Amino acid sequence: MAYEFRTTRRVEFADTDLAGIMHFSNFFRFMESTEHAFYRSLGFSVENQGGGASLGLGWPRVRAECEYKSPLRFEEEVEIRLLVREVRNRSVRFEFRFRKMDDGQAIEVARGALTAVCVSRDLETDRMKAVVIPPEIRETIQVAPEAAFAEGEEQDGLR
Amino acid sequence: MAYEFRTTRRVEFADTDLAGIMHFSNFFRFMESTEHAFYRSLGFSVENQGGGASLGLGWPRVRAECEYKSPLRFEEEVEIRLLVREVRNRSVRFEFRFRKMDDGQAIEVARGALTAVCVSRDLETDRMKAVVIPPEIRETIQVAPEAAFAEGEEQDGLR
Amino acid sequence: MAYEFRTTRRVEFADTDLAGIMHFSNFFRFMESTEHAFYRSLGFSVENQGGGASLGLGWPRVRAECEYKSPLRFEEEVEIRLLVREVRNRSVRFEFRFRKMDDGQAIEVARGALTAVCVSRDLETDRMKAVVIPPEIRETIQVAPEAAFAEGEEQDGLR
Amino acid sequence: MAYEFRTTRRVEFADTDLAGIMHFSNFFRFMESTEHAFYRSLGFSVENQGGGASLGLGWPRVRAECEYKSPLRFEEEVEIRLLVREVRNRSVRFEFRFRKMDDGQAIEVARGALTAVCVSRDLETDRMKAVVIPPEIRETIQVAPEAAFAEGEEQDGLR
Repeated sequence: MAYEFRTTRRVEFADTDLAGIMHFSNFFRFMESTEHAFYRSLGFSVENQGGGASLGLGWPRVRAECEYKSPLRFEEEVEIRLLVREVRNRSVRFEFRFRKMDDGQAIEVARGALTAVCVSRDLETDRMKAVVIPPEIRETIQVAPEAAFAEGEEQDGLR
Repeated sequence: MAYEFRTTRRVEFADTDLAGIMHFSNFFRFMESTEHAFYRSLGFSVENQGGGASLGLGWPRVRAECEYKSPLRFEEEVEIRLLVREVRNRSVRFEFRFRKMDDGQAIEVARGALTAVCVSRDLETDRMKAVVIPPEIRETIQVAPEAAFAEGEEQDGLR
Repeated sequence: MAYEFRTTRRVEFADTDLAGIMHFSNFFRFMESTEHAFYRSLGFSVENQGGGASLGLGWPRVRAECEYKSPLRFEEEVEIRLLVREVRNRSVRFEFRFRKMDDGQAIEVARGALTAVCVSRDLETDRMKAVVIPPEIRETIQVAPEAAFAEGEEQDGLR
Repeated sequence: MAYEFRTTRRVEFADTDLAGIMHFSNFFRFMESTEHAFYRSLGFSVENQGGGASLGLGWPRVRAECEYKSPLRFEEEVEIRLLVREVRNRSVRFEFRFRKMDDGQAIEVARGALTAVCVSRDLETDRMKAVVIPPEIRETIQVAPEAAFAEGEEQDGLR
């Protein structure tokens, strides 16, 4: 049962805006790609989960949020850490911590969260309907212990 | 003194994802473009506010959030309504309501918020520093009355 | 029978990059949205053409290109002019001219082209196959006369 | 002297559109990030080349093009191969080959090209001016031999 995942990513030119920093909307793309890499690390794909696209399962977001603490610049590497905050019958909430190294020091760049609901798609009406998370997915993830959320903060002196 | 702004926008092909709906990150781009249209309606540009780019004023986000209620599909028109929620010395918080028409009925699609801080950029060090919002901007905007946030909800039966 | 379409669009903050100009990849999004607006002006949607999504018709691109002549900056308005360059049994080629006003003078910003092929999607195998453009679409568009491509250039002194 | 670079990248959810495949405009973002990785592999950054951002050097595109041969789907890995096609006094032309594995077979997905011109930015007028490529960059890259462009094609039976 996994509750955590880390990945590293470099800011690309097209991620920046005229202020010279990563556009704030791209943090949400980075969160989502980390969530998908987390699922892949468990042997799932958000597209094929629980038996493939034919099942029509999807994970639309019901909530997304981000707090920005320090800007990310072109070609900077950012570490993204995913933590499972909550697992309900039909939804999962992930939290994300973005950090970069600056002069040998870890700096918190941002922290965000995504709440996704598990849906099946009715292929005839093209309507989405919330469904219980399939057990083969449910059994692979668990809520992170409280200490995991604090980790890194004491260590690095992050607030 | 303005506290509200409305605009309408059509979902483009590149805004959608393989789930057939607008990608959730694009709601943040739509919020930002509405914020900038609001400033333009007041005679400002976020790039030239208070005297132009040479002043190096900018509005980086410190917080962004969105709740998704109903999907947006390709070529659907969405109404975006901006409301000024809070004005502080150095920051402004905007709220956004996304609505579309569905069978002659207004449907709430999403509601979101952006908190932006006014910064000046030190051209030598390229560091950004929070500054007091210039009076020529501060005097044009005000916090929306509580009733404005409820408006549309009674009317349209939106929750 | 239509062979031309014009629209105007403003450059958004998220369209720019750290060089302070519109990122070159966004010109392709602007071309595509102009193509779709052209189809809408004829009463079609690229999603529902020839009878709706159920038919599984689509217009994937086989070629895209753009020449950049002058940068576009934040909040600048750009005129985009679509011209039908070629119509074949299974494909259409559009050309695009981007212009902006600068000190009362029309300046050519870019010119581009998209070649799209009409496909039907086999819903069982999810494979796309090139098909003949349906007559109800084919009968609404025609190739622009050679003079239309030159137009604007003499007039505005554009090369 | 380098004339070639390879990298691999996975298609993300936000890269796709409602047709279920990577949006065609994103191939240009992929080309650009490969170009920048090529420069990094040579010890340069497009931002700091030849002495840093203070020099105001940049590489705006004068031409971009792409031919699409086979679609890319969500989570597919694509190999991107950069080849230096031409080096002039003030510009460089790169070609790109996109390939993916399908049932153990290499399939050509797309081929594209970017032509970038070396500019210095006049910080007073904010105008860009084409300049000769600095020798410290010029000396690290060379045009790929004709055989390099054909490579992979015979080998894999690609056209």
